[in-house]
Amino acid sequence: MVRAAAEALAGHVVDTPCAASPALSELTGANVYVKLETFQRTGSFKDRGARNRLLALTEQERVSGVVAASAGNHAQGVAYHARSLGVPATIVVPERTPFTKIARTRELGASVVVRGADVAAATAVAIELAAVDDLVFVHPYDDPLVIAGQGTVGLEIMAAVPDVDVIVAPVGGGGLLGGIAVAVRDAPTDGGHPSGTGAAVELVGVQADDFPAMAQRFHGVRGARSPGASTIADGIAVTAPGALTGELVRALVDDVVTVSEARIEESITYLLELEKTVTEGAGAAPLAALLDDPARFAGRTVVLVVSGGNIEPRVLASVILRGLGRQGRLVRILVDIDDTPGRLAEIAAVIAGAGANVVEVEHGRLTSDIAVQRARVSFVLETVDAAHAGLVFDALGAAGFPAERREL
Amino acid sequence: MVRAAAEALAGHVVDTPCAASPALSELTGANVYVKLETFQRTGSFKDRGARNRLLALTEQERVSGVVAASAGNHAQGVAYHARSLGVPATIVVPERTPFTKIARTRELGASVVVRGADVAAATAVAIELAAVDDLVFVHPYDDPLVIAGQGTVGLEIMAAVPDVDVIVAPVGGGGLLGGIAVAVRDAPTDGGHPSGTGAAVELVGVQADDFPAMAQRFHGVRGARSPGASTIADGIAVTAPGALTGELVRALVDDVVTVSEARIEESITYLLELEKTVTEGAGAAPLAALLDDPARFAGRTVVLVVSGGNIEPRVLASVILRGLGRQGRLVRILVDIDDTPGRLAEIAAVIAGAGANVVEVEHGRLTSDIAVQRARVSFVLETVDAAHAGLVFDALGAAGFPAERREL
Repeated sequence: MVRAAAEALAGHVVDTPCAASPALSELTGANVYVKLETFQRTGSFKDRGARNRLLALTEQERVSGVVAASAGNHAQGVAYHARSLGVPATIVVPERTPFTKIARTRELGASVVVRGADVAAATAVAIELAAVDDLVFVHPYDDPLVIAGQGTVGLEIMAAVPDVDVIVAPVGGGGLLGGIAVAVRDAPTDGGHPSGTGAAVELVGVQADDFPAMAQRFHGVRGARSPGASTIADGIAVTAPGALTGELVRALVDDVVTVSEARIEESITYLLELEKTVTEGAGAAPLAALLDDPARFAGRTVVLVVSGGNIEPRVLASVILRGLGRQGRLVRILVDIDDTPGRLAEIAAVIAGAGANVVEVEHGRLTSDIAVQRARVSFVLETVDAAHAGLVFDALGAAGFPAERREL
Repeated sequence: MVRAAAEALAGHVVDTPCAASPALSELTGANVYVKLETFQRTGSFKDRGARNRLLALTEQERVSGVVAASAGNHAQGVAYHARSLGVPATIVVPERTPFTKIARTRELGASVVVRGADVAAATAVAIELAAVDDLVFVHPYDDPLVIAGQGTVGLEIMAAVPDVDVIVAPVGGGGLLGGIAVAVRDAPTDGGHPSGTGAAVELVGVQADDFPAMAQRFHGVRGARSPGASTIADGIAVTAPGALTGELVRALVDDVVTVSEARIEESITYLLELEKTVTEGAGAAPLAALLDDPARFAGRTVVLVVSGGNIEPRVLASVILRGLGRQGRLVRILVDIDDTPGRLAEIAAVIAGAGANVVEVEHGRLTSDIAVQRARVSFVLETVDAAHAGLVFDALGAAGFPAERREL
């Protein structure tokens, strides 16, 4: 079924690069490849399942159209391929969805209905619309055709890296991981006969700590979800795995782990700096799992499924700057000085002497009308690393300008 | 010679992805592929030429070591492959080189000497060191072995996209473009005999407007360089093309064009958002050329050589935010209000009513001790586009809060 999907999708979804990463290999000690679903037209693997489902519509269904509920990648995948196949598409997005996401889905040709407090509520609305308007509801993951479409990622990995030992993929609803599992476990290597070769590949799913539904199901743990949880990996912030996908994951996958927000953010930064790839939180989760437990993967050939790159540019800019802050490469300091001429020049000279680069300076405004008064200067400095930042602090202190460190 | 380089480099430099880009194809009207040298170990194509040159060292030379002058990609390429081959490497970097670049080169195992006011002066120092310390000077581009190494990019492009019509590559010193030209013009398609097939491929080099040395040489124009020029595409900010590379480009390349800073910055943003790829200025220059003259490339199969991704994270964050500003997706506005209770809430309500999202707010500090006084509030708003930003302005004006727009 995955092979049929691969044939049907050929030429309409991208056979994405599965690139060797010497830099991530050095960083982690594993032999790392990255399967870059960021190169799909809508920036994530969702194109595959969406198109495969749409191709199965009857003539009548193609005319009536489809409906889906999603604030993110599934919306874009369905919208884009529906347009490309001439099928009318309606996407229900939850209230308070960032309007850039709504605009992007509209640009891809879908009609957007904003309704429901969250994705679950929007899904209920979509199912209702499907019944009332006679539309086909396209499930984001719990559908054999969607799963088969996503599974083509697994076929491409096996073709590109035949000696892969481990595939690590993010898991939310389970369509991607379930599809990869189906593809890999059946992977024929000799022209059509299932050979079982793929069975030796270890399959690991990754979730965010605060959205561990599939991990809990996999490990037979019952957990209460923390109320108000949120994650930068919104693509896998799914509270209930699919019935079908849950079963596939349980039966065919070797492990499902969870990773912290800080680790995901760090992984986004590594993928940017070392791999020059923009990833959304879910897409960086596999690297986070590798960084969490390098010993488990050391010396083995590991393919990380970078599932998508749809991160808001503004969020990305924050992640970059926070990353520099975490690494001690960008520090904000406050210095209180008496507001007499020349003080700023003296401090700037100390900073320069310590080898740091001033990126931003803000001279504190006086809060009082007393003429000679303490003033506060805020600097953002570029430093080599945390140790260097420490030296700059010491130099300022020694020169009579004790500095306070602040959040960026 | 390029084929020999390809054999020598196999397994030690990355055969980088040459990915179809449906999104850039839709944007430009051409059939666009991106050759992603960002996936090399040190983030640029420089690995190829550096390693190919180092492989030709004699036993004696390997022991004495090499020296190179560069503040950027060439430094990293030489440092990394020298370490990997066990060859001592000294890199001369000009004074005032950002120390993150120095640190990165040191991390790769080279000894770094900081000397010379600019790259030309650092080069003189390196050549002197080579003579005094009996080291081999590794030229960044004007060396047949370096050119042959860079040329392997051309072989990989021809193998990945045999029906390519146009290859667009950045050009500074000319090693990359010259090497690609040599490779493509000789490209055999039938097992070894030069067939001339590649001769039909159009080759276009791209420079920054303010550093047009190769373009001027190509077009036989004599130009005075604007003093104090600078470009975000520092990788191609070369003031004098090589003698060898200049000749290759003149003889084998079809055109050399120049692009503006604004266009390069826009192209970095497009590659980030649509291709999910981090590029440095030089790496984005080919897309800039395509955006400058879409009619020239419409309907043709175009490979853009994305030569590298080594952009400072802090610069990248600025480019992202400036891009959002340019697109009207992030706007800063100032509103003067009388400082009475509730005004901020009223303005925030107007903004929300107009569908904009408040990202940052800064309430102006009082500059006087008069109790009831005008205050100034600065908002950074997220909007859908410039038209939407205009609607938000109108709504504020209509509500009695005229706003002023400011730079981000």
